[in-house]
Amino acid sequence: MRVDGTPTRTIWPLANADAVAIIDQTALPHAYRVLRLASLEEVAQAICSMQVRGAPLIGVTAAYGLALAMVHGDDDATLLAAVETLAATRPTAVNLRWALARMQRCLAPLPRAARAEAAWQEAARIADEDVEQCRQIGEHGLQRLRGASGGRERLQIMTHCNAGWLATVDHGTALAPVYAAFDAGIDVQVWVSETRPRNQGLLTAWELAQHGVPHTVIADNAAGLLLARGDIDAVIVGADRIAANGDVANKIGTYLKALAAAAAGVPFYVAAPRSTIDFACPSGAEIPIEERAADELRIVHGRDAGGVRGQLQQVPASASVVNPAFDITPAKLVSALITERGGCPASAAGLLALYPEERHA
Amino acid sequence: MRVDGTPTRTIWPLANADAVAIIDQTALPHAYRVLRLASLEEVAQAICSMQVRGAPLIGVTAAYGLALAMVHGDDDATLLAAVETLAATRPTAVNLRWALARMQRCLAPLPRAARAEAAWQEAARIADEDVEQCRQIGEHGLQRLRGASGGRERLQIMTHCNAGWLATVDHGTALAPVYAAFDAGIDVQVWVSETRPRNQGLLTAWELAQHGVPHTVIADNAAGLLLARGDIDAVIVGADRIAANGDVANKIGTYLKALAAAAAGVPFYVAAPRSTIDFACPSGAEIPIEERAADELRIVHGRDAGGVRGQLQQVPASASVVNPAFDITPAKLVSALITERGGCPASAAGLLALYPEERHA
Repeated sequence: MRVDGTPTRTIWPLANADAVAIIDQTALPHAYRVLRLASLEEVAQAICSMQVRGAPLIGVTAAYGLALAMVHGDDDATLLAAVETLAATRPTAVNLRWALARMQRCLAPLPRAARAEAAWQEAARIADEDVEQCRQIGEHGLQRLRGASGGRERLQIMTHCNAGWLATVDHGTALAPVYAAFDAGIDVQVWVSETRPRNQGLLTAWELAQHGVPHTVIADNAAGLLLARGDIDAVIVGADRIAANGDVANKIGTYLKALAAAAAGVPFYVAAPRSTIDFACPSGAEIPIEERAADELRIVHGRDAGGVRGQLQQVPASASVVNPAFDITPAKLVSALITERGGCPASAAGLLALYPEERHA
Repeated sequence: MRVDGTPTRTIWPLANADAVAIIDQTALPHAYRVLRLASLEEVAQAICSMQVRGAPLIGVTAAYGLALAMVHGDDDATLLAAVETLAATRPTAVNLRWALARMQRCLAPLPRAARAEAAWQEAARIADEDVEQCRQIGEHGLQRLRGASGGRERLQIMTHCNAGWLATVDHGTALAPVYAAFDAGIDVQVWVSETRPRNQGLLTAWELAQHGVPHTVIADNAAGLLLARGDIDAVIVGADRIAANGDVANKIGTYLKALAAAAAGVPFYVAAPRSTIDFACPSGAEIPIEERAADELRIVHGRDAGGVRGQLQQVPASASVVNPAFDITPAKLVSALITERGGCPASAAGLLALYPEERHA
């Protein structure tokens, strides 16, 4: 994708291979800022603080984090400790563990001297594959969106959180079909929930604005009314983990949209690459739900009258707060999963038909 | 209820009968401020800007607004113009029109010289009746909440927006049974959605804190997860209008909670006095949904590090915003309506059994 006309990804190795650059997603949409991460610790901190976020991007960033660790020490103990540090950053998005397992499988058998270079290459491969898979998700998703508007002139798509190119290396998951539709000349409008408490919907609005895609921001609470009164043709979201039975963990609030879509007879799609599917996890009940800091609700961010970024205490410090970051959408509410291999029913049979190599598991 | 130990209502006539006092609900929870409203225009502005809010309180405030208008002119034209001005302030809460119609019925037949005093007396009667009806809602609702916790030690109640004493003259609608339960010694905990975009959940948290009722604030998005994982025993909300068939208009986001409660098998109660029931409105489809200003989403309020109230721009001004203030919960998702006369099924038959005098209509 492009920012101010310049092609960009969300993460890229710097020329002398001793650091990676990321876009600081905690500064958007109020400021576009690129950060340099030069150590395992800086990478882990960037993931924890959500300077990088989005399940696929978290996986790629962790892979680069392991590569940075290998530059500073290439023995088995360093490798294991680095994997442990990165795996502990966030519990729900399985792409993190998927990428770390793949890096370990690649690096562990190698002689120490070969590990650092191999780690950089493998991380780059994971990044390139993510780009290609998201592009394919865009194509497959586009087939679902074509004609979804019924007789309406403009196709009305609802999404939640940010599953655009900012959440991946490029293209996005849920938004890849939207960009593909827009680029194919389809008149499309996106309904963007602000996605409290962290307002990742504003990342989606920023992305869509960069690309020129018409969009409207709503409060999360408004999704039910819009669906019930027939304003929406399809809902499409990303995922942080898809269980083997098709249950979906995604940003808190996704489940409410899925319920409202089902009640309104509106298709509800979940778009994600292979790295998001956890064949070892039988159902949503086994997916750990991250509980994040109360300050995410208590403190609000924005710009003051002079355009300077600032923050205010919104919820009094005395109030008790609970802040789960994800919820589980049961497979029965998902019209289809859309992966790089195509669409499938949200079920064990559907997933195994797309990924027959997982049948042995 | 009490604020800092002092008994209070949300609206009261001032001693020399030329003004009413209200609590400025746009200042809460960050500041407790009492405002003096001395004219029809000030009352209309206080309702529009949501310095007073909550369907029952809007009705009572409009009644006092009419009384203030009568002080400045007691002819028919003034009466009609005042009714029109007040009726135009907010479209969804039917209590407003109910109170204005009742005031008109009372005042129109009277000689001009008698109108001002009669208006003050009728407004005070409406206020007193609201207090008594909300008290009765508390008693009837308590019967529903008793035993709702199953085997759990602490009764877990979820609400939405603010339907506490701040939304009425005293006691509240949805929160009246909660206060009744707490005062009866039942161990109760309330889950409070922040209720974007205007965060009336923080009014609920403030109220509950004043009364010592344990409570936890959550993002609106978190309601589905909490219900799905069995953390909640009952949901109870207020209403801005109940149609003759039992459909309920209430704060945007209510419908999503009703869907999630139904999916989890958790009872979903709607508590409201007679003035909220619109027997002339056949179903939710006929209830007008207020669309409010985009700035409600764009601008966030809070306190800075020094404790001073302030605001920040959260959603960029360039983003298109849609901001409906209410949604419709279909009767089939409502376990029971709770009014001052008791509980009833959310249906025409249920409502007419409670209010047989409406059968002729």
